[in-house]
Amino acid sequence: MGAPLGELVLDQLFREARSYNAWLDGDVGDEQIHAIWDLMKFGPTSANQLPARLVWCKSAEAKTRLARHAIDKNRAKITGAPVCVIVGMDLEFHEQLPWLFPHTDARSWFTGSEELRRANAFRNSSLQGAYLMLAARALGLDCGPMSGFDNAALDADFFADQPNVKSNFICSIGYGDPASIFGRSPRPEFDVFNKLL
Amino acid sequence: MGAPLGELVLDQLFREARSYNAWLDGDVGDEQIHAIWDLMKFGPTSANQLPARLVWCKSAEAKTRLARHAIDKNRAKITGAPVCVIVGMDLEFHEQLPWLFPHTDARSWFTGSEELRRANAFRNSSLQGAYLMLAARALGLDCGPMSGFDNAALDADFFADQPNVKSNFICSIGYGDPASIFGRSPRPEFDVFNKLL
Repeated sequence: MGAPLGELVLDQLFREARSYNAWLDGDVGDEQIHAIWDLMKFGPTSANQLPARLVWCKSAEAKTRLARHAIDKNRAKITGAPVCVIVGMDLEFHEQLPWLFPHTDARSWFTGSEELRRANAFRNSSLQGAYLMLAARALGLDCGPMSGFDNAALDADFFADQPNVKSNFICSIGYGDPASIFGRSPRPEFDVFNKLL
Repeated sequence: MGAPLGELVLDQLFREARSYNAWLDGDVGDEQIHAIWDLMKFGPTSANQLPARLVWCKSAEAKTRLARHAIDKNRAKITGAPVCVIVGMDLEFHEQLPWLFPHTDARSWFTGSEELRRANAFRNSSLQGAYLMLAARALGLDCGPMSGFDNAALDADFFADQPNVKSNFICSIGYGDPASIFGRSPRPEFDVFNKLL
């Protein structure tokens, strides 16, 4: 529990932040990538599952390799960014629970059902993807998340040695070019998608 | 793009925040609930899908009704909190895209495949659930997310009039009782779950 954060902080994290389609010059250094992880890893996941597996494509070679699996209009959003990260999910995350959640036998909750593992991996790696974006913004960076790519082809290329890992979404990170975005799409008032009982 | 936020802000959002199991006295007012929505709604979703449908259980009656669908150990985490929110997802979210994403016919991308709609609703409502938790923390509140409940029973009770809406997870919100948590579970170093190419 803390005090409400200041208005400029709320603007940077939520109200003024946008998803960018093109990127200004400026590198994202390895230390910034590590700093994003060192924030996002503290975001809550069910039973500390931490199912996200991240591949940071930072070299020109890695970005070109990744862009080949994207739909046409997303390719330049990848190759033109300082870094584009693949948010994957480990469908066998439960094998890590003996050390990630050591005070009970959480692994046994998941051994019997691949469907349960898949749902948990998808939900919790998506949560982690959101933590990643807000951590990047908190560190002064901008994001450009995308799901327009061939998941199976990407997985065969980047996770060939980890067949239990599947891609969830990808996200370019850098310094967004304001010229690459349009007016913000509508954000509805509370009553449209909320009920208060 | 902005400057990196201050260390205390990063602590409040990520490093010092915890998932609480019990709650101190203190109401969460309707204006705080609206304020959470008015931040989280700005978090990015694919094609501005905004598939989350939220039911805020704030009255004692609503919390008791919700707790009936939870596993035993989660019931007091719901009834003892100032508010517990159901994060649902609309599997027919695409019907809203003509006004949420008006500059192209995004609705047509989803009409042909229930599987595609389900994956998008699950991914993007999970992202929104993470935005919800970080928005609550940004406003000085604590969270206690849970997935230990009977989804089908909850849906039949709370979404009987919206059969296209399914529960994703639930989250208590309030002022966390430090006595209700244990030491933090491990958070791995970068190299464990990340690759940099």
